[in-house]
Amino acid sequence: MSGSPQIGVRAYDPADWPAVWAMLEPVFRAGETYAISRDITEQEAHRMWIELPRAVRVAVDAQGTLLGTYYLKANQAGPGDHVANCGYIVAAQARGLGVAGEMCEHSLALARELGFSAMQYNLVVATNEVAVRLWQKHGFAIAGTLPRAFRHPEQGPVDAHVMYRRL
Amino acid sequence: MSGSPQIGVRAYDPADWPAVWAMLEPVFRAGETYAISRDITEQEAHRMWIELPRAVRVAVDAQGTLLGTYYLKANQAGPGDHVANCGYIVAAQARGLGVAGEMCEHSLALARELGFSAMQYNLVVATNEVAVRLWQKHGFAIAGTLPRAFRHPEQGPVDAHVMYRRL
Repeated sequence: MSGSPQIGVRAYDPADWPAVWAMLEPVFRAGETYAISRDITEQEAHRMWIELPRAVRVAVDAQGTLLGTYYLKANQAGPGDHVANCGYIVAAQARGLGVAGEMCEHSLALARELGFSAMQYNLVVATNEVAVRLWQKHGFAIAGTLPRAFRHPEQGPVDAHVMYRRL
Repeated sequence: MSGSPQIGVRAYDPADWPAVWAMLEPVFRAGETYAISRDITEQEAHRMWIELPRAVRVAVDAQGTLLGTYYLKANQAGPGDHVANCGYIVAAQARGLGVAGEMCEHSLALARELGFSAMQYNLVVATNEVAVRLWQKHGFAIAGTLPRAFRHPEQGPVDAHVMYRRL
């Protein structure tokens, strides 16, 4: 990944919250990709995306407009805390520009920097083939598939993959 | 599973906490089976085992002595909240009596009763063959294996299974 010159990734700043929430809210409300309550409040979303994770980053274009955001945290505690977990969301108007891939590469480097030795995605909706292929392109393998573990609002119960890669 | 006549399972009562903590603490401190911080405080353990889950049960013998405990919760939120997750701990002096199997069957019935349609264990230490076989006997399949996802205090980094069954 050489990186798109127009996409930068920087640390989250508290002043970013309104723009970050504007990206998160429609994705959570749609309920098509995240196992997060569709009626999550802004405060709960702030807690899970900003306060609890180990790190939060935002993707920006050359003008500083927010294109996406990701969080990074330990996926488990104690003897499992060397495995990272991330969540990524791309702004609706920035889809198809490679923002998710940029954030994924950035998060893999950051995870290594923070001392993690693997990264795990716990629930990748199997019918979201674009996402599955993207994570595979970035080195993730499908470690296992959970039958009907996700209730898609249109497709009904669909399988979900656990995806994993060493760092 | 016909059930051992001497093992009963009942609702947790706040008065059980000292006995429950006495079962949990050595297991968490040992760090051989749970991805929980080995230096978790009693208060944090109370929160994760008692306060956050949807249900907590204790296994008792005919004299009412606590033999084990389990919690039951949704493994994910929103579109993933039909999949349950449980954690089980057996008192050191009650190992080998079938307590874990009793609690497992009880938790599967309780999960069905509460409307869950599957159960998932997120991290079963692969070298813990007794546990893996027990869960398989109770209908769980290894959905996938996470390479070196658990740092065992003696064995070092070992694989962990995600185990899953429909209800």
